[in-house]
Order: sequence, then structure tokens, then C-alpha cells
Amino acid sequence: MNKEHSNALANAIRMLSVDAIVRAGEGHQGVPLGMAEIATALFTQHMKFNPQDPTWPDRDRFVLSNGHGSMLLYSLLYLTGYEEVTLNALKNFRVLGSVCAGHPEFEQKAGIEVTTGLLGQGIANAMGMAVAEAYLQARFGAELVDHYTYAFVGDGCLQEGIGQEMISLAGHLELSKLILFWDDNQITDDGSTNLSISEDVADRFRVARWHVIEVDGHDPMAVSRAISQAKTDSRPSLIACRTVIGRGIPRVQGQRGGHSARLFEEDAQATRDYLNWSHEPFDIPEDLLQCWREAGRRTRSDYDGWQQRLESLSAEERMEWDRVQAGQLPEGWRDVLLRYKRDAARDAESKAGIFASAEINDLLREVLPERMVGCADLEAPTSHKRSQRAFTREDRGGSYIHCGIREHLMGAMANGMAAHGGVLPLAVTYLAFSDYERPAMRMAALMGLPVRFVFSHDSIGVGRNGPTHQPVEILASLRAMPNMLVMRPADAIEAAECWEIALEHRAGPCSLVFAKQELPTVCDSALSENRSRRGAYILEEAAAGARQVTLLATGSEVSIALEARRLLEQEGIATAVVSMPCWELFELQDSDYKQQVLGADTVRVGVEAALRFGWDQYLGTRGGFVGMTGFGLSGGVEELYQHFGITPLSIAATAKALL
Amino acid sequence: MNKEHSNALANAIRMLSVDAIVRAGEGHQGVPLGMAEIATALFTQHMKFNPQDPTWPDRDRFVLSNGHGSMLLYSLLYLTGYEEVTLNALKNFRVLGSVCAGHPEFEQKAGIEVTTGLLGQGIANAMGMAVAEAYLQARFGAELVDHYTYAFVGDGCLQEGIGQEMISLAGHLELSKLILFWDDNQITDDGSTNLSISEDVADRFRVARWHVIEVDGHDPMAVSRAISQAKTDSRPSLIACRTVIGRGIPRVQGQRGGHSARLFEEDAQATRDYLNWSHEPFDIPEDLLQCWREAGRRTRSDYDGWQQRLESLSAEERMEWDRVQAGQLPEGWRDVLLRYKRDAARDAESKAGIFASAEINDLLREVLPERMVGCADLEAPTSHKRSQRAFTREDRGGSYIHCGIREHLMGAMANGMAAHGGVLPLAVTYLAFSDYERPAMRMAALMGLPVRFVFSHDSIGVGRNGPTHQPVEILASLRAMPNMLVMRPADAIEAAECWEIALEHRAGPCSLVFAKQELPTVCDSALSENRSRRGAYILEEAAAGARQVTLLATGSEVSIALEARRLLEQEGIATAVVSMPCWELFELQDSDYKQQVLGADTVRVGVEAALRFGWDQYLGTRGGFVGMTGFGLSGGVEELYQHFGITPLSIAATAKALL
Repeated sequence: MNKEHSNALANAIRMLSVDAIVRAGEGHQGVPLGMAEIATALFTQHMKFNPQDPTWPDRDRFVLSNGHGSMLLYSLLYLTGYEEVTLNALKNFRVLGSVCAGHPEFEQKAGIEVTTGLLGQGIANAMGMAVAEAYLQARFGAELVDHYTYAFVGDGCLQEGIGQEMISLAGHLELSKLILFWDDNQITDDGSTNLSISEDVADRFRVARWHVIEVDGHDPMAVSRAISQAKTDSRPSLIACRTVIGRGIPRVQGQRGGHSARLFEEDAQATRDYLNWSHEPFDIPEDLLQCWREAGRRTRSDYDGWQQRLESLSAEERMEWDRVQAGQLPEGWRDVLLRYKRDAARDAESKAGIFASAEINDLLREVLPERMVGCADLEAPTSHKRSQRAFTREDRGGSYIHCGIREHLMGAMANGMAAHGGVLPLAVTYLAFSDYERPAMRMAALMGLPVRFVFSHDSIGVGRNGPTHQPVEILASLRAMPNMLVMRPADAIEAAECWEIALEHRAGPCSLVFAKQELPTVCDSALSENRSRRGAYILEEAAAGARQVTLLATGSEVSIALEARRLLEQEGIATAVVSMPCWELFELQDSDYKQQVLGADTVRVGVEAALRFGWDQYLGTRGGFVGMTGFGLSGGVEELYQHFGITPLSIAATAKALL
Repeated sequence: MNKEHSNALANAIRMLSVDAIVRAGEGHQGVPLGMAEIATALFTQHMKFNPQDPTWPDRDRFVLSNGHGSMLLYSLLYLTGYEEVTLNALKNFRVLGSVCAGHPEFEQKAGIEVTTGLLGQGIANAMGMAVAEAYLQARFGAELVDHYTYAFVGDGCLQEGIGQEMISLAGHLELSKLILFWDDNQITDDGSTNLSISEDVADRFRVARWHVIEVDGHDPMAVSRAISQAKTDSRPSLIACRTVIGRGIPRVQGQRGGHSARLFEEDAQATRDYLNWSHEPFDIPEDLLQCWREAGRRTRSDYDGWQQRLESLSAEERMEWDRVQAGQLPEGWRDVLLRYKRDAARDAESKAGIFASAEINDLLREVLPERMVGCADLEAPTSHKRSQRAFTREDRGGSYIHCGIREHLMGAMANGMAAHGGVLPLAVTYLAFSDYERPAMRMAALMGLPVRFVFSHDSIGVGRNGPTHQPVEILASLRAMPNMLVMRPADAIEAAECWEIALEHRAGPCSLVFAKQELPTVCDSALSENRSRRGAYILEEAAAGARQVTLLATGSEVSIALEARRLLEQEGIATAVVSMPCWELFELQDSDYKQQVLGADTVRVGVEAALRFGWDQYLGTRGGFVGMTGFGLSGGVEELYQHFGITPLSIAATAKALL
């Protein structure tokens, strides 16, 4: 690669980006024009990939964390020959239906590894990918797993708290195959970075024990040498690239408007003149295109060699490899849960909801070695480590990640692991802290990634730690999120059922929400089927006659509803209790089933130690609700349930008042 | 102060904390026992405060960011003589109703400046307080405003992204009167900090341009000297204190269990033996107590001098001071909004929702100089700066804070400003990014702080930037939050009305949610009253006869609903349109009003470019909904509204199908 040639390659990115942005009438030129040389160096000299097989498991991963610069990615994918990213798709940048959306949207067969654009998420995803790679290499060997994770990052991602969490933990874990390219253009949307930051960003990485190389981001040879150097270092690397935002567009380059100021035909022309680019819009001269396509074939021998090594696996090894790559569950996984359920029913021990989950998680350890558990400094109270080894810089075979007090990073890492494939990530914390990782949860839902978010301490059942730690609105806010299964089991049996559902569910994330407090065994009446799969079911039908009252409850309140039913039935009021572990699954049932469960003509009372918000859809016009009306308080658990009137007596009274 | 004496003072904190924790059966001993000497140095040698007048505006602020160590704070408050924190309250630590809750809960008359316990929030609040102090000093002079903000902080707060955001921005802004004490005990809940962090935390602060002093946290003289030094530096200071967690409890000190392992009577006894403490539980010998009470009176002359300076203000100065301290609005503020409303009705220009808010914000600048606007790097698209000066390290009189890409910090800073008093904080960003600041919003709601969260880009109206930037579930998740007014105005007129409500509302936070897209003027039929104050109102009554259909809409969908009404009325279907800018206010109306507005016996259709979640409470059993069913897409705005069927035609069709 010589300088002139690589400049031409970089300018192909520039012009495609400018042409697409002008045509779309909007877009962000800053990144594709400012990072064109960096991208050229990476994709023509280093990146291991095969555009003919975009989901090749051992490909290097590339994440555009500054996702607003999406045209950089689309240009690269087109130029290197990804079939799904056609010239036509580029021409339809930001048009409904084009793969070239405003921000990159998860579509691995098109070369888009993750959805980015919410700042900070991408680099945290990238870190998760690097963790997955290290773990899988420890498990399957470097013959099958040996790739880098590269991420482009702007000032925004690094100012965001999640970015800072990533810097800290990636340095700690010495993820040597994680390589970041910082677009150090000294401009954000508001103008100069001087407006909001004074620290030396490179030094901040150095403090966190990163390997830092500072280069001219417009010198592809220097960038390429930096990458070579980064690959040999035992630490994660930051390649800090001094760049000019929007470089090549005379009117805006190096200025605030370089970020995303509206571009016009005249700007495109001025850019052509400036770059000595004589070709028509979207026209890449054949020789240049061939050079780029050649870059897309450059690592073909790596690919072929890898395929050969895959072929040489024993049948058993191959089967296991294929299984985890496909995200399939192994023979016998369900038996583990069935056995647990039967034992729980037999022993009928009260146990903390979260400890039921912990027991299940522990039982799954052997049958599901691809399970990777992240937890944000709550090992003891959530107990999802048990006999698992920690994933550390010395032991990449460990599958429990001490994430520190960094919930947001934890969630986004889990997304990155799920997007990487080959591992099955869980993220564990208290439900009150789910707000800290909510942006990552939203990204999991948006991408449809099978991440299992496990939460403990799910209500005022937290007790004396008080309202900061007591969720009251969080169930509602999670249920409001599209593509998210929210499950709140009533006892150890439902815990096993919900785990079964969560493991089967591959189309998106789940939230498994558990009580801190002890739950009596109440769902032991039909062990052979997984009743939670229908989302809600009649746990106890009315006995005193035709049903008059239906109590709808979830989680720790199911046993309270059962007690209320007993009181009502004693008074001759025929009452059923419905357990509703998962609203989203219930919504998928047919109308007959729903009416039968809800008891269309009965008085319905919702019971949940949370706010009513969202419940009305199930309560009808005559409905009542027993739960919270605001934040909790610091006090003993029993006392709080009394104080807030979440008791059998008040449920019974509510039902009677409505009859 | 000599060492022996200060040790005795510190041990008083230790024993009160251990006795209270043993009595409560749970609690966190790590902080009160590990930071007892630090607290002693601060409160007996430096802290400017008056327990007789806990809300004295010029007091130093003290924030226990590691709020789980609440017994440290309660012990200090009792010992220094805060009336509300009695020995009895200490004995009732963690009992329902005691001011000594599990985590400190906002109660300034008891000396509790903010609620803490969600990690990272406290130090970000503290930064907000330091900003408020600097601004108020610039405005009112150092005679009236000249105090420090001290915060205690553990590893958790510093690992959290929000903590990292704070370090970065506080260093940038050179908030010299912000002084942090880091409890460097090398232990978190999971065990050694080595499990999750390798960086030199002090160096991380140095990179961000903090003044860092490293001391032995058990040497009160050294800590006191460090505080003196910190006060003279022009940068914010970190006093990094090496400490032993739970120091003084032989069984757990310096160990993981030092954090919060259950303590027993024997531990209390062993601690007594270890500390040579011969007094009964909760018994502080009179001489020690008097020393502590003396510390509570130490800065009395500062207090008296300040009161004299206050008395010497001119009547006009005094009135203004009293006004902003009380958070009262000045004469004439309402006229500004009324005039805006009238002008908007007259001009009937379509304008972007967020720009209506920006215009109002600009008009309020002169009449409400205490307004402080934080914005997370979206100055241009949200336009809430306009002619305002920036608050910078050189200009403390500026009232616009370039927060950088740090939404979470922005929200928590706003909380700190509101808790400080004397300023009226706004926090501005896109609605899609509200998830990043949600934990801070929850704290504002929990504390009941009057923070105004302003959001733009509130739906698929975002357009081509796509689903990452398009909220669909966020209105629901905000409405689910207790104590949060969520307002979504339909046009510039409702924008002014909602601003009026937001400014009047002092009992908690508001979310003011605005469209990116242009909104036609539609609410100009009754300018003399603020109809939004009732939360929902009949904007257009049915004309074709007795009302058959009620269309309930908010924000940018109100004009679409009006168009649908026109179609329905043309077909002879008597249809009303209800605008519902604020559900929470509507819930406060009496049942007659609600029934009248909702049209109890009519077909009701909710219309909102968001999910249905939460709407059912207003739709009745025959109800319909036109809105989103999942995440959005990247495309043109008109196209997206068509694609998702949020159009007059589909609203009309939905209503007709239900008739």
C-alpha cells in the first residue's frame, strides 16, 4: 500500500458517503470523512473477514460505536463486497426499507455486527465480544477461535459513563484483542471539545492500563503500523487518531458543522474538486473498486484454513461447536429443570426467589458450559456464582464476570456477547438497579438478542434498605418495553418454568425477576406441563360455586392471593387465583383462553407489590387493584406489607366491595 | 485536637453505629467504622453548619454518597445536635417511621441533604450543589454565598459511569469548592477491589485535573491538614483516604464481611473491648457528647455574621434573595407565558415542539435568572441556550451548562442543584436518551425535587435517525414513575401552559416532552384559562349530535386526531377530540369531570405515536388504540406515520369498526 493509492481508497469512502448524505438530505459526514484513512488501513491491511460469509464465526469483529457515522460502515461493506449492501442500498441511505438505515441496525448477514448510535453502547458491546472470544478460545482452542475486535469510537462514547466503565474493566481484564480507534477530532455536536472536557483522554486510558498509541489519523501507513503494534501487546489498545472532522468537504471540514450540517450538491462538487475526484455520484472507478474487493478477499486463505480445521474436528467436537454456534440447547437441558421442579414440589421448602434462580443457574452449569454470568458486585446476595470459576486475565476459561459496580456496562457487554455468538450471557443485579442498565436492555430488545437479565430484590420485599432499593414502577417500565419478556415467578416451580422459557426464547431478551424474600411453594399442582408458558393460568379455580371473583397475581403476591381466596371462599364467595408470571406470553394466547383465565364476568382484582400502571388492561371496568401507590419505605418486610395493605384481608375486602 | 481525643470522638461514631446496627439486626458497618476519623476531622475542624438551623443557606453541604453507610451520618447528626435525630431515632434505625432509614432519605431539616444509596448519585448531586454555589456566589456575592460541598465516596460510586462522568466534568469546570473523601478500603461487596479494578483511582482523578491528596484515613490530623490544603486549591479536590473497612470490629475489620456482614451482640462487645469503650449501648459519656455538641456550635460566629450581612441587604436585594431561596416565582413570570400564548394563537405558525419550548425558555431568561439549564451536547437541535451565557470555569455567572455527552450526570447534577436551593434547574436532552438519566429522574421523584426535565425528539417524528433515537415505550415508562408529572403538549399554546404548570409545580419533578417535528396551532380556542392544568380536556366537542366517539390524543397526534374527527363528522358520526397533555393531573380531577371528558358511553380511541401500554385505563372495554406496536424504523416522518398507520383515516376506521 502506498500513500497515494490508499488516499484514493479512502476517498472512495468519502465520496460514497457524501453522495449518499446529499441524496438523503441528511446524515453525519463527520465520521466517514474523518476516519476514511483509518478504515482503509484496517480493512485493507488487517481485518480478517469474508464478505461471502459474513457470519463466519472466526471473523474479526468491527463495531462502529460512533454509529451516527453509519455511511462509513455502509461504504466499507459495499466496497469490500457484502452482497446485501448494494450500490442501490447506498443510494437509498435513510430511506424506509434500506439496509442503510440512519444508524447501523443489527444485520450480521449484511456485515452489521450490532445496532449502534446510542453513544457508549458500541464499545461496551465490543468489549463483550472480546470477552466471548477469549472464553471461546479457552474452550475450543486458538485453531477455531482467534480473532480481534475492533471498534471506532468518538468523543461521545468516551464521555458517556458506560464508556468509562468499559475503559476501566477492559483494562483490568487485559483484553488484549480489543482494539479501539479514537476519532480525536476535537469537535462534538456543541462545538469544540473544550466546552465540556479538559482531560487528556489518552492518559485516562493509560491510567486504566491500556496500551495507547497516538497517530495521525490521516496517515494510513501510520495507522496500519499502530494496528500491528496493538496486536502484539498484551493489553487492550487505544489507537488515538488525530483527525479532521468531515475532512475533504471544504465548507465544513474541521468545524462544528463537519459533524452533521446539511450538505448540498455544491458541497459534493466542492469535495470532488478538493479531492481531485472526477467521477460521477456513486461511481467508483473499476480499478479502485477492484482494489477494495481484493481487500475483501485478502484473508480468504485464513478463512479456508479455518474451514479445514473445522472439518478435521471429531464428530463429537464438531457437534458441540455447531451447537453452541447455533445457540442451540444440548440434549438433557430440560431434564435438569424438570428434576429441579419435581424436587422443589417434593421438598416444598420456602426459599428466597433469587436463591431458586441461583440453584437453577448452578444446575445448568455443567449442561450449558456456554453460559456466561456477569454480575455487578452482588455475588453474595444473588448467589449466581457458586462453584463457577471467575473469568479473569489469568483464567479465560472462567465463566463468571465480576463486573464491579458497573451495571450499564454489564448489560451492554452481555449484548456484545450475544451478538458475538457461541456464548449465552446472563446479567445479574437488583431490580432497582435495572434502571442503570436500561439503555442496554433497550438495545437488546431492539436487536432481538437472547440476553437473560436476572433481577433480584424485586419489591418492597427488600425491606429495611428502603425506597431507593425497592422497585415499585420498574415492572411496569420493563413491561412497557417491546420485545422484552418480563417474568416474575411465584415460587421455585415457576422459577424453573420461567428459566425454561427464557432458555428457549431466542428472539429477544428476557427479564427474570425474583423476590429477595422467601416464597412458599404454591404452584405444585401440575408438574408435567409448563403452565407459565401461557403467561397466565388458573392456579386455583373457584370451589364455592360459579366463579365470582378472580384474583390476578404475580411473584411473591401469589401466595398472598391464595390466602385471600381462602378467606373469600370461607365466606362462600367463589374465587379463583390466576398466576400471571409473564404478561407478554399471555398476550399471545387466543381470546377464549384469555377470557377463561381472566373470568370475563367476574370481579377481578390485580395483586402485585408494585404500581397499578399497566394492570387496567386485565381488570375490566369493575376491577380493583391491591398494590403500591407510590414509593416504598424503610422497614421490616412484614410491616411494609401491612403498612401498604398488601394482605389477604385487604384483597378480600377489595373484592367484596366490588361485588 | 489531639490524637487521643479525636480517637475518642471517632469511637463515639463507631459505637453508636455498631449498637444501632446490632439492634436493627442489619446495616452496613463498613463506612461508619472505616470513615469515623475522617468524619471527625471534617465535622470538628472544618464543617460550617448550624444544627439549630439545618437549612441555613450558606452552610457547607455534606453528602454521604456511599449512602449504605447511613449510620455514619445519623451518628454525626445526633452527636452534633440536630434535634430531629434523637438517640431514640438512632435506636430505631431501619424501623418504619424513623428518620434513621436504611439509606439516608432527603430531609434537610434533619441534616440529610439528599437521598443516597443508589451508587454514584450522591457525588453527582454534590457536583450540582457546587455548581449552584458558584453560580449564586457570582450572583449574590461571597458575603452571602461562600461554602464548600463535601462528599464521602466509596469504590462503588467511583466505578459507576455516573461517577466517572462527574470526575471528568467537575475537573473541567474547576469546581474548587467540591471536596471528596474517598474511602479507599480496597473492599467491595464481592471482596477485594482487585476482582474488578486495577487502575490507580487517584491517578484517574489527576488526569481529570483534580487536586489529589493521599492520606491515612485513620489519622484525623492528617485528614484535617488535607482539608485545609484542599480549600486553598483552585481545583476540585480528592482526599484519598487509606482506610480499614469496619475498623474496630475484630471479627470483620479489613475483610469482605466488614461491609455489611450481620453483627451480633458479641461483635458489639468485642468492639467495646477492642476500642477500650466501657459505656453501655447508645450511651455517650457526657464529656464526649459535649465535645461533639461544641463542634456543632463551632461555626456559630460564621452563622451570626452571615445573618448580619443578610440583615444589611437593601429591601430589594433581600426580597430577591428570599424569593429565590424559597423557590418562589417573581412577579410577572406568568405574564410572559400568557403573552407567548396569545402571540402563538395570533401567529398560528407551525413550529417544532421543541422550539416552542426553546422560545419560552428564552423569554423566561430575564424574569427567572435562577434558571440553570444543563444540556447534554444538543445545543443546536434543542436550542435551549440562545442568548444565555455558558457557566464555565472563567464565568460563574453563566447559566447554561455544556454537560458534554453525559446525560446521567446532567440529571443528577440537576437534582443536586434543586436540593441546594436558590436555583431552578432544567435538564435538556432527547427523549430517547432519557433512559440514560432515568436513575437520576427516579431520585428526583423519590425526593420530590422540583427538577424540570425537558425532552425533545419524542416519537417516530424523529424520522431517519431511526429506532435507536425514536422513543416508543418511554412515555409509558415515565408515566409509570410515581411523583413525576409527564407533559406532552400538542402545540405552542399547550407548551406555554405546560411550562406554567411545570414552574408552579414544586412537589416533584416534571418531564416536559416535545416533538421534533412541526406542530400546527390547534389549542387556540380558550386562551384565558390554562386547560392543560386539568390534565385532559375537550378540545373539540362533537358537533354532529350526541357524542358517539371520543378521540383521546397527546402531543403531535392531537392535530391528527382533529383531522380524523373531521372525517368522522363528515360521515355524521359525532366525535369529540380530547387533548391529554398530562395524565397525572387528569387523575387528580373528580370523577364527574373525568367521565365527561372521557365520554363514558362513547367509543374511545387513544391516539399516540407510542405503545398502548398504560392507555387501557382510559379506553374502557370497547376502546381502540392507534399508535405503535413495537420499535420504529429509519425513514421519513410522513412515511413512517403512514407505515405505522397513525393517520386520520386509520383513526376514523378504528372508531367506525368499534361503533
